Amino acid sequence: MTQRTFTVAGAGPVGSLLSISLARHGYRVGLYEGRPDSRKTNIYQGKSINIALSDRGWTSLEKIGICAEAKNRAIPMYHRAVHDIDGEVTALPYGREGDAIWSVSRSGINEQLLDIADDEANITTYFEHRLVDVDFETAKASFRLGDEDELAVQPDYLFGADGAHSKVRRLAHDLPGCSHSQTVMPQCYIELNVPADSDGSHKLEKNALHIWPRKDFMLIALPNTDGTFTCTLFLNASGDPSFESLTERSAVQAFFEANFADALDCLERPIDVFMEKTAAPLFLVQVSPWSFNDKVGLIGDAAHAIVPFYGQGMNCGFEDCAELDALIAEHDHDWRRIFPAYERARKPNADAIAELSKRNFVEMSDLSGDREFRVRKKIEAKFSERFPELWTPLYSMVTFSPDVPYSEALRIGDAQDAVMERIMALPGITEDWDEQYVMDRLFGLASETFGDRK
Amino acid sequence: MTQRTFTVAGAGPVGSLLSISLARHGYRVGLYEGRPDSRKTNIYQGKSINIALSDRGWTSLEKIGICAEAKNRAIPMYHRAVHDIDGEVTALPYGREGDAIWSVSRSGINEQLLDIADDEANITTYFEHRLVDVDFETAKASFRLGDEDELAVQPDYLFGADGAHSKVRRLAHDLPGCSHSQTVMPQCYIELNVPADSDGSHKLEKNALHIWPRKDFMLIALPNTDGTFTCTLFLNASGDPSFESLTERSAVQAFFEANFADALDCLERPIDVFMEKTAAPLFLVQVSPWSFNDKVGLIGDAAHAIVPFYGQGMNCGFEDCAELDALIAEHDHDWRRIFPAYERARKPNADAIAELSKRNFVEMSDLSGDREFRVRKKIEAKFSERFPELWTPLYSMVTFSPDVPYSEALRIGDAQDAVMERIMALPGITEDWDEQYVMDRLFGLASETFGDRK
Repeated sequence: MTQRTFTVAGAGPVGSLLSISLARHGYRVGLYEGRPDSRKTNIYQGKSINIALSDRGWTSLEKIGICAEAKNRAIPMYHRAVHDIDGEVTALPYGREGDAIWSVSRSGINEQLLDIADDEANITTYFEHRLVDVDFETAKASFRLGDEDELAVQPDYLFGADGAHSKVRRLAHDLPGCSHSQTVMPQCYIELNVPADSDGSHKLEKNALHIWPRKDFMLIALPNTDGTFTCTLFLNASGDPSFESLTERSAVQAFFEANFADALDCLERPIDVFMEKTAAPLFLVQVSPWSFNDKVGLIGDAAHAIVPFYGQGMNCGFEDCAELDALIAEHDHDWRRIFPAYERARKPNADAIAELSKRNFVEMSDLSGDREFRVRKKIEAKFSERFPELWTPLYSMVTFSPDVPYSEALRIGDAQDAVMERIMALPGITEDWDEQYVMDRLFGLASETFGDRK
Repeated sequence: MTQRTFTVAGAGPVGSLLSISLARHGYRVGLYEGRPDSRKTNIYQGKSINIALSDRGWTSLEKIGICAEAKNRAIPMYHRAVHDIDGEVTALPYGREGDAIWSVSRSGINEQLLDIADDEANITTYFEHRLVDVDFETAKASFRLGDEDELAVQPDYLFGADGAHSKVRRLAHDLPGCSHSQTVMPQCYIELNVPADSDGSHKLEKNALHIWPRKDFMLIALPNTDGTFTCTLFLNASGDPSFESLTERSAVQAFFEANFADALDCLERPIDVFMEKTAAPLFLVQVSPWSFNDKVGLIGDAAHAIVPFYGQGMNCGFEDCAELDALIAEHDHDWRRIFPAYERARKPNADAIAELSKRNFVEMSDLSGDREFRVRKKIEAKFSERFPELWTPLYSMVTFSPDVPYSEALRIGDAQDAVMERIMALPGITEDWDEQYVMDRLFGLASETFGDRK
């Protein structure tokens, strides 16, 4: 049998990882990227964009056989450092002792995976090849080089790993039977920067994700290895305050002073950046099916772009790759079975993390919360510590429990909500929350609801 | 003040009605249609496509001041004529005595509205002008005439009334902040025909909507004034049986004989038509917002294409026009207020009828239903007759109660479901359904739930 060929469109982290997995399964892979090679040209212009990677991401990399070199360059964040309006900072742990989410340089992990791909004899990577067309019957694809030249390739199969704005997906929209949606969030974002101190150290606590939660908007900061922090300001597109309403320099200055006074001391020219930059939209993408004619598939953000509020986007994309990796072996390279099995396994989970990521803006931007919300969290934390087999908080299921699929985490989380609503309806609960009878009642309800999960 | 101008893209029933409404409010309207004028060229090739119009549609036409001439050419259908697998026909009334939905020729009502538009001095209609571009900042639009010529127009405002495949909407998808979805149904459809009898009369009962409900698929027939019926076969795109699985002529013949034996006697060459035609997909479209920069709006199917299972598509589009007609007066031509008010008023209703139309396939294709379903319907009918102020069946709210918005009908329908679930959980209900205690219990629950609606 001749060696079968794959075209992978998009050499981001997911496309690179997918290519490595396919190559190691014996496929000849052409990995195509529209942009230049960031290892050779400084396309990021010195900007560090970072993302959160957690247990699902690391586990998926391991499953595909990527050693955890990337983890050595990642910064563990053990808690949220919550900056209140007066500059008071409170540490809220992410999970139990030692649990961390990791701040990873997007370009860094991408380049590490591209280096590994370069070492695979079965992979050839082409940069500055922009996908322009796909034949969904045959997987034939056309790429444009520069403004003029067009190159046609005819692989056996093609994967679109070309991100939230996926060209492969947008071409698929016109196929009969293709359902798709794009949901724009009310918030937009801009990125800001906290430079390193003169000695190269971090100006803010290094091993934390910093949040300035202000309910309708928030600022966050993730540490980079070079001593800087990459910050993101999430703010409504319209309304008051919003990117639309804040047009005067003086108003922007006043907005930062009123809401982020302590951050103003360390941010690099935030008012200038706010005035200069165009806020980027946040959107979710869903599409069905994820594959066409058993020839062309979608993976990562191309199949399921989500919003960043749960820090799970890349984790979810890497899980796609790990699932596919396992299915290739399980179905012995029969793509008529692999494509549908891949979608059956992953689509419900992608839908679930999409829903969870949307909901989490409220949780994240209102961390101080009202009294009742804080009481509820305290009861849950206490109960979970005593009866871990009955109760893992939703955040921990999503972030630290890679064996629990996202869809399962969502389902259990909703059942936990229903239980906690009954607890919070107990008279006097905000005073009595630490009393034994509350734990007893919760034990009763939780056993009834989750007792068979053991 | 100079006369303000509107471009309306799409001269279907909704675009034509909208143009009449705008013209009567004093706007100068250019009504543009990509296809030829059906009154001059036989673009329908003798085919009668009919649609269901009911109280919402008629009421909306009246509100805009269109006399009910169309109703004289429509055929009232007082009940569903349900054809079971043995050819037995049962009449299931749509509502109370005299309640009817109306079979209307799509081209007929369109041409009547175009004739009325022609009589309006403020409207100029252009056929064979295909929209190619819209500037959403200025409402400037470009149309193509034939293959070469392009015409640019610069109105004050533009409405996309260009149907489910709306070009205006698809251009809007790329605007920042535009959310949109397209949901494809598992079913596709083809149209079939029952010719008139030799004396010009109807071969089937005229004043009925005929249904051959077969659970996963169904055939329906609506009467035309010329003695024919237009039939639609709804069948899954894939699976068994499906348009995909039925590829052999003999299999198609066997499928019709097994499922539609009595229809086979009167259908015109159904097997030929099945073999020749490509099944058309059914899909729903949602988009947000419905207007852009207070310059360009969407209306009718362009804003909210739904599936045909509730017979409400054109009713909903006509309601859009009537709402807008009222808002122009209410907000005295201030489109910065009219556009948002129109969307606030209509979007929740469009979303509700979209949901209801999806759900109704199950109801319609399984009319015989299981015993429990039939018992439930009987209890509801009996209760509704005795206590009409407490209970109007969902179908009647949607179809015969134009004063109840779709969103309200959906909400009440869901609450009725919850009540009926409790009734159907009573032990022995399938035997006891006609007993007084069932009415008493339902009265108690309904009063509790809906008692404040009076």
